[in-house]
Order: sequence, then structure tokens, then C-alpha cells
Amino acid sequence: MTPNVAAAKEKLAHLEIDDNPVTIKNKSRDFFWYSPVLKTRLDHVVGDFVVSPRNEAEVIEVLKVCYEHDCPVTTRGAGTGNYGQAMPFSGGCVMHMKNMTEVKEVLPGRVIVEPGCLLKDLDAACIAASGQEIRMFSSTWATATIGGFIAGGSGGVGSVRWGSLRDLGNIIRLRVVTMEEEPLVHEFTGEELARVSHAYGTNGIITELEMPLAPAYEWVDVGVAFDDFMDAAKYADDLANEDGILLKLATPIEAPVPYDYFQRFKPYIRREQNLVMLMVAPQSIDAFETFTKRVASAEIIYRSDDNDWARNPGHIFEYAWNHTTLRGLKFDPTITYLQVRYGFPDHLEKVAEIRKIFGDEVPQHLEAIRGNGKIHFAGLPIVRFTTEERLEEIIRIHEDLGCMIFNPHRYTLEEGGRQMADARQLDFKREADPKGLLNPGKMIAWDKPDWSYETMYDYSGMRKAG
Amino acid sequence: MTPNVAAAKEKLAHLEIDDNPVTIKNKSRDFFWYSPVLKTRLDHVVGDFVVSPRNEAEVIEVLKVCYEHDCPVTTRGAGTGNYGQAMPFSGGCVMHMKNMTEVKEVLPGRVIVEPGCLLKDLDAACIAASGQEIRMFSSTWATATIGGFIAGGSGGVGSVRWGSLRDLGNIIRLRVVTMEEEPLVHEFTGEELARVSHAYGTNGIITELEMPLAPAYEWVDVGVAFDDFMDAAKYADDLANEDGILLKLATPIEAPVPYDYFQRFKPYIRREQNLVMLMVAPQSIDAFETFTKRVASAEIIYRSDDNDWARNPGHIFEYAWNHTTLRGLKFDPTITYLQVRYGFPDHLEKVAEIRKIFGDEVPQHLEAIRGNGKIHFAGLPIVRFTTEERLEEIIRIHEDLGCMIFNPHRYTLEEGGRQMADARQLDFKREADPKGLLNPGKMIAWDKPDWSYETMYDYSGMRKAG
Repeated sequence: MTPNVAAAKEKLAHLEIDDNPVTIKNKSRDFFWYSPVLKTRLDHVVGDFVVSPRNEAEVIEVLKVCYEHDCPVTTRGAGTGNYGQAMPFSGGCVMHMKNMTEVKEVLPGRVIVEPGCLLKDLDAACIAASGQEIRMFSSTWATATIGGFIAGGSGGVGSVRWGSLRDLGNIIRLRVVTMEEEPLVHEFTGEELARVSHAYGTNGIITELEMPLAPAYEWVDVGVAFDDFMDAAKYADDLANEDGILLKLATPIEAPVPYDYFQRFKPYIRREQNLVMLMVAPQSIDAFETFTKRVASAEIIYRSDDNDWARNPGHIFEYAWNHTTLRGLKFDPTITYLQVRYGFPDHLEKVAEIRKIFGDEVPQHLEAIRGNGKIHFAGLPIVRFTTEERLEEIIRIHEDLGCMIFNPHRYTLEEGGRQMADARQLDFKREADPKGLLNPGKMIAWDKPDWSYETMYDYSGMRKAG
Repeated sequence: MTPNVAAAKEKLAHLEIDDNPVTIKNKSRDFFWYSPVLKTRLDHVVGDFVVSPRNEAEVIEVLKVCYEHDCPVTTRGAGTGNYGQAMPFSGGCVMHMKNMTEVKEVLPGRVIVEPGCLLKDLDAACIAASGQEIRMFSSTWATATIGGFIAGGSGGVGSVRWGSLRDLGNIIRLRVVTMEEEPLVHEFTGEELARVSHAYGTNGIITELEMPLAPAYEWVDVGVAFDDFMDAAKYADDLANEDGILLKLATPIEAPVPYDYFQRFKPYIRREQNLVMLMVAPQSIDAFETFTKRVASAEIIYRSDDNDWARNPGHIFEYAWNHTTLRGLKFDPTITYLQVRYGFPDHLEKVAEIRKIFGDEVPQHLEAIRGNGKIHFAGLPIVRFTTEERLEEIIRIHEDLGCMIFNPHRYTLEEGGRQMADARQLDFKREADPKGLLNPGKMIAWDKPDWSYETMYDYSGMRKAG
């Protein structure tokens, strides 16, 4: 099978094609540089051309033509993922969804939308139509797309209330096009959703999504400072367990991260203070204050609805989730991060253990989230990176303590997930992408079913640098 | 202190007064007859006159005049409580809130309302104004008032999502009038709310409420049958722990209660089948079906959005909470019930233990609710009543197993609650009702601070029968 990229490109010439080398390179990258490991390995990755279909018919045409010519197709939204999700390892066609942005219908509790719609624009449309908003979004809300979030994300702001994207009910329906001789269009609901959600576009291309909505509120952003980090973590855990207080975010961050990396917070926080960032529904603010007054160690330093700060810090969620590390990288490009799961019920104890081991080498950043009905923590700690070997060691120590790692220093679905093949995704890839042309190199189960995960997977089809 | 009821009544003659003996009797009662114990003791209770103030100024006038004349005042909404909450033990004035029903303002996430507004009317107004509804309500939604629910209730339909009324955030503000020489008007928020919520009107009269709202959906009523009750209970528990599936009710009911007492379900359920009743948001229906298909023992027998039943069973919540027992009493007036708390995390195990002990003497009725962030069960089991002694024994066995009982066969705040004085309520009563005229006989801490709770409290000020 030899790809004939030029032929595919020529046959698609009537579509919106970008073949300017500078913009192709730009559109072949995501935020993989969060990871020093991926940075080394993926920096050279570049596609051959970018096509931006305007509708599903054009998506079908792209997939059909590329199938004919054995041309790889890597689909992307805004490219704000940081596992290399949307990077065309084998070159070929980068399919950019920026033209498919229509919000088709807003209904009570749900919205139907095209994949290229920005999360920000989707929320604006839902709020305008009905006072609703999406249940959860990534901290890249202002620039990321809904399709990219579903295909490459796992949860985020709102997960403290609604759990993860993989939980039943957090995606209602996905419309998916396959890459076959004659591409098929599927409507997936229920159990079928797991085939293509969080599959990086390796086994089908989402052309329409139906997502649940929650009421939109004028969320009050709040920052609460603590001298002791475990006090901060316990406060966030307890508050998130208050059933009558509606939150959209509860994020404990260890000192000195807020002082060192959150410029607009710096004048109002001491370097040794830890910060809990919250989004509180306005109708819950009084109860939030009541709860907080009971906690002697808590000091409210910021409220978006009442402050005299010289400079508006902006949305507080843009300091949380992946944005914490992003802000850190601007001050210290040598840092990186991890993705940890501290499971219920011993999530607080586990965090305490990890802190004792690593101290300031791994400053904690927690996100209170729900899973199986219980509040616990996702961890996105900063790592003061030294070597790949030490990073591996840090990961191993976490795992030995029973803290699951979703390794953000790997580019495959499996290594960034639970280190095992997802049979549903693999089975559907066999059906939907028989030639293996969709986002090559991201699914180990497809390429090397007997991989053992002890070392980093090295995709053999990766186009070489230069 | 000798009450001069006649003088008080005369001085209030310009207000809406009812002194027809038949309607006075009617308005002196609530659903106390759920309990054979209370039925014996409270059946004769009757006030001397009923006054129905039209606004806060008239409430103040009633309280001031009755204070002057040492006339007891027992305040009531619709009288759908079943602890004798709203019954005038010492006679005197029954203050009926039926004329104070205004929905004053509907805002995003909150509503301001007068206490006499029916829950049903409140929901209708909130839905019409903004597509919102109250977070939780009693199964007596169609007839009960919001003021009565807050002063006498603890939770209900919606508690599976939002916890209990006592949880921070589930009441925002209460406006309260005291019974002093010059009645004062207080606005209570935060910690102060606990003074008067669930205080049966013993220490102040609520004249306005600010309550949080949730989005209103066209909830789908669902009935799921199981051959084994513990399968039913586990299913409800697991479903309520699905973070992405929005429920308003999850109620497992043991056989033969559904068959014997739920007439419109009878043609569609076998006598030995247990029933889980659910209210599911429409946007979660697909996920609900997906979840339910995973449970081999579950059989969906009813969906309000898709059924061919000859007769509409009506709102499914009118088979849940206190309505389960109410329906049972129509078929078998000898039954009664209990209120149990099966706490997390061993709520399922505790239910199993209790069932082994009592079998069909105490058919189980559970309500999945949230408390401290965790799903667990409120139990409202049917009790096949024989004697008061056996009822006491059943209660004691529950308590010995670590299942807290909120005894619905007692008429005091303490005995129906946690069997201890609430210092906040008592302290506020000292301030707000110095003569002890508000709903006499309901707060043991006021009447007999050294009461030991080993036997049923017998209020010495209770007016004798005849």
C-alpha cells in the first residue's frame, strides 16, 4: 500500500485546500510540547496538505478519495490537545473541521451541533437560545472545538458535577462517517458511543454531535487561600460534597504555583499560600460563604462579583485543568505535568503520601471531580522535569502507590489511557477504517496487538524528520 | 398566664376569621392518622378559631394581638404533614396561610414566594416565567404549600440530586416574624436558616421564602420491575450514582406493595415483583436505557412517554415518599410506616439485614437520596401494625442495627428528629416567642429540658378531649 498523496490532493482541489508550508506545519501540531518527551519525538511531524470540508458531503468525499489513494487522514479541531492527538504522523491529509461550525438545534437539555464549533461559540448560542450551556468543557474553551473535545478529551470544567465524558449520558448521540470504499454514515447512541468518543478520530469522523445541556448561570469565580495544602484539598473535597451548593469547578493548587505562575493573583497571595479556585452558581453563593466561614483556615481572596483588584484575572477556569501547566510553562519552560487519578475513598490520603515523597519536585494541582457518584480527585501536578528516566520513575512511584496515571508523555490511545486495548474501538476500526488510514500510529492495538507497554511505543510508520 | 382566646378573636374580627366548628376541626388536623399511635392521642385536637392573614402586616397583627391575650398560635399551610406538626394542642388560634400565595419574583436559579403558595402553583409559575422548577418537593406537591414544606418537611422528590432541605444552599432566605409584644421581622440567611427551618412554626412565622431553582424538564416517569428486591435496591443505587444521568426520583418498593396498593400498576406487575420508580430527564433517557439494558434482572414495565396502559397512572412521584403509605392505607387502614436512614456506605447491607429480620411484617420502601455527597437510602417501610409495643420493638431493632429512625409516631421536633434538643431553635424560641405561645407542645427542649426520650413525650398542656 503506497499512498498517492498528490493524486488525492489533486482530486480534492475543488475543496478548501491549504498547501502553504507554514500553515500546514501550524495545522499539523497540537500542544504536544507540554511534554518534553513528546516534544523531542513529534516536533518534526507535518502533513502534506490541509483540507477544510464545509459539510458532511465534503467529509465523505475527502474520506472516499483518500481511501482510493491510500492517503492517511488525520482530523483535527483547534489542535489544543496535548497528547499529539491531532498530529499526522505519517503525513498525508490533515482534515480541519473549522468550516463545520453550525449549531443546528437547541432543545431543553440538549443541543445538536457540528464538530468544528468552538466551545465558546456553542455556549454563546445555547445561552442566547435558551439560557443553557454545555455540562463540561476543557479549560481551552475559548479556542477548542466541541468535536475535538469529544474525540480527544475526557472531562474538565463541570466534571465536579457531571463526571467524565465517558459516563453514560454526557454524550447523547454522535454522527460518524467511516473511511471505506463507500463511506457509511452511522448514528451512534448508548453503548455505541464508546466506539468513537475519545478515539482521536482513528476509526471514524464525527460530523454531528448531540450533547446534553445544563442551565447557564453567571458563575461566580472565587479564589480561597490556605496556608496548608491539605487543608485546601480537604476544603475542596468537603465543599464539592455539599449537595445543595452548585459548583462547576473546585481546584486546589499547591504553593508556590499560584504565586509564581498566576501573575494577576500574585499581588494578593503569599508565595507559601495554596489556592482553591471555584466556580459557584450565584444562587449558591450565600451557602458557599456560610460553608467557608466554618473553615477557620480558609481566606477568600478573590470573588469575581466583588473585588477591588486592579487587573481582572479573567475566567478562573483559565487557571485550572490544563491551563495551570500552560501558565507555568510561560514562566518556566522546563516544567511539565502528569495526569493522575486519586480514587475515592482514600484520595486525600493518597495525595498526602505523594506530597511526602516528592515535595516541591511535584507541586500538586487537583481537580475535584465525580466518578461513580463520588467526589474524588483528578491530579494534574506540575513536574519539575529533569530527565526522562526520572519522569518514568515518578510515574512508577505513583502507580506503585495505587494512583492511576494517564500518561501525557505518550501519543497513543492506550498509553495515555488505561494501558490496554479498547476492544470496542479496535473492532469498530476494523469495520470503519479497513486500510488503517485514519490518524495512523495512535492505536497500538491496531498496529501491534501484542505490545507490552513496558517501554514507550514507537510507531514504525512515523515519517522521519527533514 | 391564662389565655383569653375570645378577646384575641374579637380584636382580630376584621381579618378573615373562620369559626364554623366543622371547618375549624378540619383545619386543626393534618395527616397524623398515618400513625396509629398519634391517631389515638391527637384525634380530639381542635383550635378555637382560624385566621387567614392576607399579608405580612396581618400576620404581625395576629401575633401581636395573640401575644397580648396569651392566646396560642399554631400556623399551618395545607396540613399535609403527618407528625401532627400543624395541630393546635392547646387550642387557641390556628393561623392558616392560604391567602399568602404570591410568587413575587422568579430569577435565574431562585424564586421569592409567600409561604401559602402550593408547591404545584409555585412550579407552574416558575416554569411559565423561566423554565425552572423547585429543586425538591414532597409527594403532596399538588396540595402542600412551600411554607409548610420548609417548616415541617425534610426533603423529597429531588433529594436524589440535591440532598435534604437542611443542606446548605437548599433554602436561600427566610423572612420571619416573631411573637413578641412588638413582633420583629427578621431576614435569615446562612447559619441563621437552621433556627426556623423544620421548626414547625414554634419560634417564628415565615412570611417570605427565597428558594433555589433547578431547570424544569418534562421528566419521564419510569417503572422498572425486579423479581428480587435487593436487585431492585442495587439497581436504584447504581443508577443514582451515574453522574451523567439526571434523575429526580429513584424509589425501590418491595413486593407485594406495588401489586397490592398501586391499582393502576396491578395489571402490569406480578404480586411477587418489586418496583423501582424513577423520574428521568428526557436528555438522559437514552443513557438510562443503555444502563438498564446492562442489568439482566431489570424489566421496564412503564414509561410515561411510551406506553399502552389503559389508564394513566398519573405522576409517579405520587406513588413515592409519603404517598406509598397513603396508597396503602386506602387498601389496608391497619398499616403504618417508619422513617429510617440507611447511611452510606453500608446502606444496601443494612437493608438486607433488616429484611431478614422482619420479612413481610415490614415491606421495604426506599428512597435513594444524597447526603454528604453520597447516595444512600431513606427508608419509609410499610409496617403491618399490631401493637404499640411491637412497633416500639421494631424501632428499637432498627436502632440497634445502626439504622437511625426519625420516628413518625411522635409529635415533637426532638422525637421525630435526632432525639436531642436543637440549641439554635431553642435559643431563637427564647428570643422570638418568650411566652411560648407558638405551636405549643412541639419542642420538648422548651417544655421539659431534662426529658430523657425513653418514653413518649406527653405534653402536659394538651387540651383534653371533649
